[in-house]
Amino acid sequence: MQTKTVVIVGGGFAGLSAAKVLANKPEVEVILIDQRNHHLFQPLLYQVATAGLNPSDIAVPIRGQFPKAPNVEVHLGRIENINLREKYLQIPEGKLSFDYLILACGAQHSYFGNPQWEDFAPGLKSVEQATEIRRRILTAFEEAENEISEERQKELLTFVIVGGGPTGVELAGAIADISRTVLVKDFNRINPASAHVILLEAGPRILASFDEKLSAQAKSDLETLGVDVRLGARVMKIDGSGVQVGNDWIAAKAVFWAAGVKAAKMHLDPTVELDRAGRIKVKGDFSVPGFPSAFVVGDMASFEMSAGKFLPGLAPAAIQGGKYVAQVILNEIRGRARGNSFQYLDKGQMATIGKKKAIAQAKFFKMTGFLAWVAWLYVHILYLISFKNKFSVFLQWSWSYLFSKRGARLITERDWKLKD
Amino acid sequence: MQTKTVVIVGGGFAGLSAAKVLANKPEVEVILIDQRNHHLFQPLLYQVATAGLNPSDIAVPIRGQFPKAPNVEVHLGRIENINLREKYLQIPEGKLSFDYLILACGAQHSYFGNPQWEDFAPGLKSVEQATEIRRRILTAFEEAENEISEERQKELLTFVIVGGGPTGVELAGAIADISRTVLVKDFNRINPASAHVILLEAGPRILASFDEKLSAQAKSDLETLGVDVRLGARVMKIDGSGVQVGNDWIAAKAVFWAAGVKAAKMHLDPTVELDRAGRIKVKGDFSVPGFPSAFVVGDMASFEMSAGKFLPGLAPAAIQGGKYVAQVILNEIRGRARGNSFQYLDKGQMATIGKKKAIAQAKFFKMTGFLAWVAWLYVHILYLISFKNKFSVFLQWSWSYLFSKRGARLITERDWKLKD
Repeated sequence: MQTKTVVIVGGGFAGLSAAKVLANKPEVEVILIDQRNHHLFQPLLYQVATAGLNPSDIAVPIRGQFPKAPNVEVHLGRIENINLREKYLQIPEGKLSFDYLILACGAQHSYFGNPQWEDFAPGLKSVEQATEIRRRILTAFEEAENEISEERQKELLTFVIVGGGPTGVELAGAIADISRTVLVKDFNRINPASAHVILLEAGPRILASFDEKLSAQAKSDLETLGVDVRLGARVMKIDGSGVQVGNDWIAAKAVFWAAGVKAAKMHLDPTVELDRAGRIKVKGDFSVPGFPSAFVVGDMASFEMSAGKFLPGLAPAAIQGGKYVAQVILNEIRGRARGNSFQYLDKGQMATIGKKKAIAQAKFFKMTGFLAWVAWLYVHILYLISFKNKFSVFLQWSWSYLFSKRGARLITERDWKLKD
Repeated sequence: MQTKTVVIVGGGFAGLSAAKVLANKPEVEVILIDQRNHHLFQPLLYQVATAGLNPSDIAVPIRGQFPKAPNVEVHLGRIENINLREKYLQIPEGKLSFDYLILACGAQHSYFGNPQWEDFAPGLKSVEQATEIRRRILTAFEEAENEISEERQKELLTFVIVGGGPTGVELAGAIADISRTVLVKDFNRINPASAHVILLEAGPRILASFDEKLSAQAKSDLETLGVDVRLGARVMKIDGSGVQVGNDWIAAKAVFWAAGVKAAKMHLDPTVELDRAGRIKVKGDFSVPGFPSAFVVGDMASFEMSAGKFLPGLAPAAIQGGKYVAQVILNEIRGRARGNSFQYLDKGQMATIGKKKAIAQAKFFKMTGFLAWVAWLYVHILYLISFKNKFSVFLQWSWSYLFSKRGARLITERDWKLKD
């Protein structure tokens, strides 16, 4: 039997899940390529940004995931070009041929044609962005403490989060929470609890992918935490001094972006169709139309489940997609039928609001409040990949919860060199 | 009674210890100034650099150290100038007058007049430098795995550490250790255990501050770990491709600096005398000659204990000095004599070598091997300031020790912005 080469691009939920199915299968040689050496548990990234967790609590080295799989090779590096017709990838070291390709490069933030906003409003997709947001939040309180002008102090303590999806809601809730519980004991001159946290949502409600009742509950829970939730708030401009929302100007130094996402850009074949968010339109088995051995999974794929209904950009969808595609490839190599179209098993969705509340919904139930938060905690700890991470995260959370402390309250700089 | 203002510059071991003595003393108002928001447990920084610990395991927010001390104000910021005669500090916000001043700004690396070496050989004094070294170590293995040329692979897997003091020894031991235990399971093409770790010491022996027998034992322990220890090795040149040592050229991409230190630069009075390493010469009570209310403690001070014998740059010396000075100030404010000259209580010193060995020496005993390592572990865990940190470090170490894993194996970049 001849071994087939499967190249997987991206070590996120989709790519990693596919690689795990293919590990130790004698029919395949797997090459997993990523630009970063770690798999990131993105749903908890906001916890790093708000000093609740360490980066390494939610990031695991990709290599470490395949210690006993000699058929999986992990390659740290960039892709320059992909040729679907001749079945190869161009990488800096040369050409890399494949029999099967799984593209799973995920999504990035989109500033809707205003890339200049990024400097003033970082997004939350990588560890570096999370520590940058953490730096900005903690530095704002420090600068406010040093500030004499009351007006300027108010600006420094105004935090604007753009985008009312799960990331924006969780970030806003966590900032409101730490300013009212953790930081309150740290400062003498300012009152961190006076921080003004504003959540801007362009649409008519936050958490639009949830049931209307739940999203109303989430709004009211956020308001109880002290978050100023503004709906129908369309951002016109962001600069270093604040945000223009319709006719209102909000003076604020700390602005964070949790609004649009777009798929990672990748030059494929001219015949490949993209949707409005740059995602690649795929068939019922995630293959690229016209290229049955090239698959796109995770946030990079536009997968239509039924007319107008698309597979959501959630971790469970990415994991299920990755596993499914790996199985399709194995089926084909083993000379069987590729199998039925992918069926999404909806495990529901959840979002947490501050320290003790959440909303959760699945097919047959809806939950809010403390119980939903416990469910949220349980699901997220279970999902964290390695035992060590689970345990460390659990400890950090227990600690934060019991003592209202944040262990990772660290302002780090980008530059490591000596300063005189 | 009139409250006196004590300004402490620097939140390291010396400054923090002084502030803790002065906290909640009604006679004083304390202003603690630091450029960074965290106190760093520097003796364990090499563990962050070698992926054994998280930055926040060894760094605690300075503010968090004084939750119940309304007389201690923590100020994050820089000092522009100090005027000892008129008793004020110039900070960006204005003049800050003091009755007493405690300078404790610590030390930085010194490249002996070759500042251009820094780019190629980062030192290990800050969290950022530690994560930069971690990035370089882990990236070297990744690049070697991708490299086709054997010669180039060898260069990538050559790690040079300049300086055979405790930091250099601990760094060299830890790199040798992770390449032979942790990383060995992660790679397919290269054998991480073939990494060539070279420790360069200009003098006739490593760990020169220890007893000769112990330093010989440490050398032999390092060699057992696979470290290539070279004595009398004077570095002539460092660039991006390697290190010139006497007539030998060592081709290596990863070079780390653990050689000289110099005191933090601070413009004081023209009458103030400095030693060769830029440290300020102080009197028996750490005061600056001619300025009885200005004190310098920690690595910034040159304190002569007896003819030609100086207080060592160790954490216990800094802690004792900080406490002593705080007491001198309190004595004077309370109208008592300032007290006797400072007496250093020598608690000994220790250095660890790889995962299971160390050397330790105090007045009445010397230890080597596993027992010394257990002592080292115990002392370092005890020293870590907050309970949470102690516990988290203990867990991480137990984990690493039992499973030969490194939890913080994370390559982070300096830039947080999107890349296309």
